[in-house]
Amino acid sequence: MKIGILTGGGDCPGLNAVIRAIVRKGTFHYNDEFLGFMEGWRGVLENMTCPLTLEAVKGILPRGGTILRTSRTNPAKAERGLERCIENFKKNGIAALIVIGGDDTQSVSQKLFERGVKLVGVPKTIDNDLSGTDFCFGFDTAVTIATEAIDRVHTTAEAHNRVIVVEVMGRDSGWIATYSGVAGGADVILIPERPINVDEIAEMLKRRHDRGRFFSVIVVAEGAKVTGDAQAIAGSDGAKTDEFGHVRLGGIGNILAKEIEHRTGFETRAVVLGHIQRGGSPTAFDRMLATRYGVGAIDLVHQGEFGNMVVLRGNHIQSIPIVEAIATTSHVSPELINVALSLQDRRGSRKVPG
Amino acid sequence: MKIGILTGGGDCPGLNAVIRAIVRKGTFHYNDEFLGFMEGWRGVLENMTCPLTLEAVKGILPRGGTILRTSRTNPAKAERGLERCIENFKKNGIAALIVIGGDDTQSVSQKLFERGVKLVGVPKTIDNDLSGTDFCFGFDTAVTIATEAIDRVHTTAEAHNRVIVVEVMGRDSGWIATYSGVAGGADVILIPERPINVDEIAEMLKRRHDRGRFFSVIVVAEGAKVTGDAQAIAGSDGAKTDEFGHVRLGGIGNILAKEIEHRTGFETRAVVLGHIQRGGSPTAFDRMLATRYGVGAIDLVHQGEFGNMVVLRGNHIQSIPIVEAIATTSHVSPELINVALSLQDRRGSRKVPG
Amino acid sequence: MKIGILTGGGDCPGLNAVIRAIVRKGTFHYNDEFLGFMEGWRGVLENMTCPLTLEAVKGILPRGGTILRTSRTNPAKAERGLERCIENFKKNGIAALIVIGGDDTQSVSQKLFERGVKLVGVPKTIDNDLSGTDFCFGFDTAVTIATEAIDRVHTTAEAHNRVIVVEVMGRDSGWIATYSGVAGGADVILIPERPINVDEIAEMLKRRHDRGRFFSVIVVAEGAKVTGDAQAIAGSDGAKTDEFGHVRLGGIGNILAKEIEHRTGFETRAVVLGHIQRGGSPTAFDRMLATRYGVGAIDLVHQGEFGNMVVLRGNHIQSIPIVEAIATTSHVSPELINVALSLQDRRGSRKVPG
Amino acid sequence: MKIGILTGGGDCPGLNAVIRAIVRKGTFHYNDEFLGFMEGWRGVLENMTCPLTLEAVKGILPRGGTILRTSRTNPAKAERGLERCIENFKKNGIAALIVIGGDDTQSVSQKLFERGVKLVGVPKTIDNDLSGTDFCFGFDTAVTIATEAIDRVHTTAEAHNRVIVVEVMGRDSGWIATYSGVAGGADVILIPERPINVDEIAEMLKRRHDRGRFFSVIVVAEGAKVTGDAQAIAGSDGAKTDEFGHVRLGGIGNILAKEIEHRTGFETRAVVLGHIQRGGSPTAFDRMLATRYGVGAIDLVHQGEFGNMVVLRGNHIQSIPIVEAIATTSHVSPELINVALSLQDRRGSRKVPG
Repeated sequence: MKIGILTGGGDCPGLNAVIRAIVRKGTFHYNDEFLGFMEGWRGVLENMTCPLTLEAVKGILPRGGTILRTSRTNPAKAERGLERCIENFKKNGIAALIVIGGDDTQSVSQKLFERGVKLVGVPKTIDNDLSGTDFCFGFDTAVTIATEAIDRVHTTAEAHNRVIVVEVMGRDSGWIATYSGVAGGADVILIPERPINVDEIAEMLKRRHDRGRFFSVIVVAEGAKVTGDAQAIAGSDGAKTDEFGHVRLGGIGNILAKEIEHRTGFETRAVVLGHIQRGGSPTAFDRMLATRYGVGAIDLVHQGEFGNMVVLRGNHIQSIPIVEAIATTSHVSPELINVALSLQDRRGSRKVPG
Repeated sequence: MKIGILTGGGDCPGLNAVIRAIVRKGTFHYNDEFLGFMEGWRGVLENMTCPLTLEAVKGILPRGGTILRTSRTNPAKAERGLERCIENFKKNGIAALIVIGGDDTQSVSQKLFERGVKLVGVPKTIDNDLSGTDFCFGFDTAVTIATEAIDRVHTTAEAHNRVIVVEVMGRDSGWIATYSGVAGGADVILIPERPINVDEIAEMLKRRHDRGRFFSVIVVAEGAKVTGDAQAIAGSDGAKTDEFGHVRLGGIGNILAKEIEHRTGFETRAVVLGHIQRGGSPTAFDRMLATRYGVGAIDLVHQGEFGNMVVLRGNHIQSIPIVEAIATTSHVSPELINVALSLQDRRGSRKVPG
Repeated sequence: MKIGILTGGGDCPGLNAVIRAIVRKGTFHYNDEFLGFMEGWRGVLENMTCPLTLEAVKGILPRGGTILRTSRTNPAKAERGLERCIENFKKNGIAALIVIGGDDTQSVSQKLFERGVKLVGVPKTIDNDLSGTDFCFGFDTAVTIATEAIDRVHTTAEAHNRVIVVEVMGRDSGWIATYSGVAGGADVILIPERPINVDEIAEMLKRRHDRGRFFSVIVVAEGAKVTGDAQAIAGSDGAKTDEFGHVRLGGIGNILAKEIEHRTGFETRAVVLGHIQRGGSPTAFDRMLATRYGVGAIDLVHQGEFGNMVVLRGNHIQSIPIVEAIATTSHVSPELINVALSLQDRRGSRKVPG
Repeated sequence: MKIGILTGGGDCPGLNAVIRAIVRKGTFHYNDEFLGFMEGWRGVLENMTCPLTLEAVKGILPRGGTILRTSRTNPAKAERGLERCIENFKKNGIAALIVIGGDDTQSVSQKLFERGVKLVGVPKTIDNDLSGTDFCFGFDTAVTIATEAIDRVHTTAEAHNRVIVVEVMGRDSGWIATYSGVAGGADVILIPERPINVDEIAEMLKRRHDRGRFFSVIVVAEGAKVTGDAQAIAGSDGAKTDEFGHVRLGGIGNILAKEIEHRTGFETRAVVLGHIQRGGSPTAFDRMLATRYGVGAIDLVHQGEFGNMVVLRGNHIQSIPIVEAIATTSHVSPELINVALSLQDRRGSRKVPG
């Protein structure tokens, strides 16, 4: 059986481990043959391919990135895009396709599946907010990198009596912020799931100061909803606010640092982790998960469960329809938010303004 | 409420994170007071205590070991042991106890609970084989360390055309071996759950050699069951065999290396990871899990759910009776064993002798 | 002998290791007693002290930050600042002082030494640009962190066909950029020591692209001198230019990314490492160097070599007058710059404009 | 110019970085062409070669091992070995050879140089004991790995009130033991340069215990000279003694653990790091050093300085005759030994027997 593979969307540690697992199990157990489409859907549209042999996947397990490269190209937005994809599958004699990607990438999978393409999906989002699966590979690596960064700035915050704000990934969900914030012992964790007023943050820091802790570490998801005096926040360099006055995207870390320093008088610095969270060698956890996904995906193909995606539920690999997985964003559970909150010292409450 | 805490059994990354979470949530949310018993049950028997204040748990989240130290002392085996424990609880005004430990430690918990002591348990085993919970803290750290070691010896095995055997922890179960072996891309993984003949291993290596791969990495759990010519294996320096001729404990890594070199003629070396797998700073995953266990345990106390233990099921913290948790050993699931096997190249099978 | 210790200036991995080495050797070999001044010179000015016993330095070797905290307070700029320092030394019965710090901190040391204070210095700069010593502790840690970040973004740059700019520390010198850039295999390294036109950078990237390498990683020191069309560069958000049109400080990484994307059409992203480079546990190299400096400093005190600073020359600990050490900035040697340049592929030169 | 390259002796992190630097600078600056001889001198003897193009060295900088593989084959011990080497150089049109290796490997270089072969050397020894150079690449990586292991066992030793013995590499010198022991804060460091009686070690541990420190970490080089009651030590399983009753090689770590537990009554465990110290990705320090050596070596070739080896002196790359480099072993300097000793708490001396 000749099977196509592609990786779409943003880079994510573990992509190579998925590819390797598919090719190895497919070759050893099913006598499959594999063709890689380069750069996500772009490779399907433009028929950019490379053979995926055992030799091609040798040694890639611990490596970040994807040997197939990736892009955000969306065939549904190209002229005759979906048709051209289907033509290129035929041209290459592809009997089935395995698509590794997130919401955007899988929305194309769904459209092609509805047009009769035999495909299965593997979930991928560094933010861990794809619904239907407990964990996505790459997430543990991102959390590990963020936690190490938080550990490091902790010593500097303490040595200088400073507040340090660490901005981590998470546009729509606070998974990375919550995990790395709890693991790194952050004093405040700010996430999209739980809007907070900037004055409240300032008060927490002042109370902490009053209790004799002269430094603080704040972890903020890039999409955290921080409200407050719109003038003050939105007037900051580069800030954007939505209709509710929420500061969204574009530099929340640096904005917060300014606002906090302004409100508390405490020296405050920001660190924006950015791209280092999504590159490089995956953790052992992510290598295992990615490998299980790859094995699960090739099994799905041979079970004929097309239109489905492998997912992790508890410690079991299962499958769900792709269309379900892409319907909603997965948010941090109330239990985890409570864990984060319950470790915070909220004693000695001053009167919070407003 | 005055609550006692103790940590028993072998060292495990994340113990301090559990203690910190209990003390912080207990202090901030329940106005509890904490007393630590030193060195596991020995501290209860001999009334060795230390106050566990917020100050005492400051900065311990990322640190390995346990500020309460630990031991394998078993009060049930001491004269009037259980009675003396109960007396010392009274003497210290302990209203409830949180016991962090594995099978042995919790078997004492169960006995004391049956005698009326109000206590809850937190599971702890580096081997991840406590039944009732999906994961124990410390396991991810051990897997991470073992995987890094496997990554490292891989390059040396390849540079020298060698076989390298990496012995990891796991007396009764192959969790660490399976996870680190898959994550590290080991060519052969040997675990207690799946006995194997040493000749079969040798054949696999020879076939691999025939296919032009002149090096191999083998991961073996310390309790892996490797059978074979008893003379050959058991005659090796230091080996012990059980009644079925299985080599058990005591240096399986070094013995295997000798046997493999003898059978294949390939230069073979062993690395025994030992204690470095259970010390040092916990991974982000383990810090989160340990923190959730700590929060869960103090909540159990205040819900009055004594005799229970916090567990992780899927991504949810739940609780089960301690007596259930200690009844059986949790083994690597068939699905995971299949993942490991399905990545192995088993082509070109020679005739395996006998 | 009662000896004072202080740490001044920015945080730097290894400060605690220096303190520990001084206190241990001083206590065991010289029967000294130690007093810590808190927060650098501020603690001397305001007589904020803490006893530095063996117990106080227990376990601090692997920890980042400084148990004495630090500040940039300069007594020479305070009213009667130097006099108050001298008074506080007397009040505390300080027979000698060990000052751990960089240029600014040691310039105060020199002034106090000239007024008769018996003191010795320990060099500290994360940037490694203190003249007179081959290496400063903390530098290897910063290089290690930066190199790991470069490794990580490499895979993302390759997966996405992107240019990624990594901004590292180095206001006046390119030590961190050169070391991490060479160690990380960066395609272009930009440092203060070697001004370069932004058009030249763009041409290098285009030629690389023409040779079929569709991604590039650029490492830039925060103080790198990048010249070019002032309009274009200085017009960028937040850029500042000096009188020669050099872009200095304030966000060179982000500016460069914009300029490169504008000139080449290649998708370009920036990562600014910032504070994570100067916090956290020191590398083994830095722990050894810091320990040797600490041992050397307490020896200098007992040899009566006041006004001197310990330095590393080759693999030997020596000493030089503080006044010499603070006179000039140490720059990356031509040999190292040549190493960096000689690994760059400069073939197929297009005509560089202007 | 067509240049041969080979790597000989034990695996060492940084070998690939040397190869890459030679090939890149040689190709870009000198228009050289490269041929790799596989598996050290074996590849020269048996004419096993591979072309070393820019493509072949792509991405190898951060990887452990050597793409040329390695062996301990010595042509001087093979029939007509040196002659066959010279014939194979001619057959392949090799104008010059770069030999990367330690004492044994370079002794062959010297013999061939004396027979007219144009070659230069690059020093390689994980043990750092090649005389003539301050540091060899790979050493910092080994020290880093050993230090991380010591950090980890520290927490376990403390949690259990145990003595833990960590055996590190170093047959003839104590470089790794001294660096990692100081960096890891070991309580006792045992090296070949400074023989010590096992009773003295036991006494140090007992005094430490008397001072209330109930755990200890000992770092021992595999070739450390530990003397004592020959019966006791040599009688241990697997021990070998030299003519002076020194225990040499073969398991000093495990033997010491037994002897110490026997003499002190303290629970003692051993960890033997073995091969994990010489594999895997090199540290930033080692990548830089290896790269400088590679650049230096190709420069030496074009300067016609044959028979020489690149070395690091202070922070400068220089060259010395190969014959000098292989004459003697470099030992840990008295200054470093003093640093290690001066941090040890030697107070409260009991009477040491004998």
